Order: sequence, then C-alpha cells, then structure tokens
Amino acid sequence: MMLKVEHIGIAVREMEKSKDLFSKLFNKTAYKEEAVESEGVITSFFQMGETKIELLEASNDNSPIAKFIQKKGEGIHHIAYEVEDIELEMERLKNEGFTLINDKPKKGADNKMVCFLHPKDTNGVLIELCQEIRTIDAE
Amino acid sequence: MMLKVEHIGIAVREMEKSKDLFSKLFNKTAYKEEAVESEGVITSFFQMGETKIELLEASNDNSPIAKFIQKKGEGIHHIAYEVEDIELEMERLKNEGFTLINDKPKKGADNKMVCFLHPKDTNGVLIELCQEIRTIDAE
Repeated sequence: MMLKVEHIGIAVREMEKSKDLFSKLFNKTAYKEEAVESEGVITSFFQMGETKIELLEASNDNSPIAKFIQKKGEGIHHIAYEVEDIELEMERLKNEGFTLINDKPKKGADNKMVCFLHPKDTNGVLIELCQEIRTIDAE
Repeated sequence: MMLKVEHIGIAVREMEKSKDLFSKLFNKTAYKEEAVESEGVITSFFQMGETKIELLEASNDNSPIAKFIQKKGEGIHHIAYEVEDIELEMERLKNEGFTLINDKPKKGADNKMVCFLHPKDTNGVLIELCQEIRTIDAE
C-alpha cells in the first residue's frame, strides 16, 4: 500500500546555489544534508508538509544525476512514495506489468530501503518506492 | 507561507491510457475529472496522502501541455504548493527575485486561485502557488 509522497527529488548542478534558491522559495532552511556514496549523490532536504524536497547534486561524473542533467538539464528527477511494505508493493507492481530497476530493495538516502520503477512504464516519471529501515528491522 | 505540496502535475498524451496506468500504480481510481478550458487541459486527480497527483492532457494544440510534450515528452510538468495567502506569497517571492508568470492570481483547476513562477529561476522546476477560492471569498 502507498501512503504518501515521501519526497520529490530535484537534480541540481550546484548544491550551494540551489540551497540558497530553495531557502528563498520556501522561506526556510534545509534541515539535513547527506552524501550517499553508493549513488554518487550529495543531498539536501527541505520539509514541506508531510513531503520532503530532496535536492540532488552529482558527486562524480558517473552519477545518475550527472547523466540526467547532461541529458535533460536541471529539474525534477523523481517522485518517491512511502509504502507500508516495500517487498509486497514491489511484488504487486511487478505483477501489474511495471519494470523494477532493482530486484531487491536497496539502501537509499535518509535511512530508507528503496526501489525504482522504470519510467518507460510510468509516463516518463521516474518513481521510487521507499520504506523506513527500522520498519524492516522490526519485522 | 507555504503549507504543503498540494499537487504534482504530470503531462500525459492519452488520458484514458494514463488513468489506467496510474490506477494500477496507486491501486486506486481517479476521484475526479475536470476540464479547464482557459488552460486547454483535461485533468484527472488521484489522492496520495495530503497530496494530489494531477494528470494533464492537452485539449487543443495550443495548450501549454501540448507544447510541453512536444518539447520534453510526457512527464512531470509542475509542482504546486498550497499557500496561506497567495497575494502575500506572490509579493514575497517577487521581492526575493523570482519571476511570476502571471501578475495577478488566476482561476485554475480544482477550485483554486493560482500563480506560476518561471522555471528559469527555480532550477528548471515549474512551480505553482495555489489557494482554495473559498478562503479568498471569506476575506
């Protein structure tokens, strides 16, 4: 079951500049920064209601964010939905014909297990499913 | 003041096909459809937590959605933030150096007054501010 829009990921070229820009836009500062080396990204988070806005800067040239910006420029990179049980949801979506980019949940930013759906099946929108890690540990 | 992500607008080529797709993705049906003739769009809405997902199909060739799809293909078109007072927020953002696409709030879908910010100032993200019309009427 999908619960809410957990975050919206936005690809940016220069984190410091974009953090300033979004601080002005939202009239508040980023509450957290985190590097996710396995994904080649540096992230900054803003809270907006129950949803986070996650700025994503590439930390190396092979980062998916570097490739995205090369191809499409800066902009919205993905939408992440919080799910109750990521493995059940992956199974359900696979049976509905969606293509999972990773077969098993993997460790993402912000203490989450994540899975991406291929945008070719979802109107060009890259979709992430995510679930807090502590929920899985508790099972 | 910005309150939450009110909706995420997604540009689609064929509404019926995309409604099916998002129904499967979310495991629920669209709760509302609405044509906004002034904007040249047909819309369908899904609820996800406190945020709506708004599918947008062009109803004529001059629609901003037709132009967007021509240029970029299907995908995320804009993010809409609910604001407490749209005129105050427009004033604040103008003073911060953002470019407002419309100088005065205008009537949008879903019983809202809306204003768009030019994506050149916002990392390529088209941003909408919106406020329920009844709030304005009550003032």
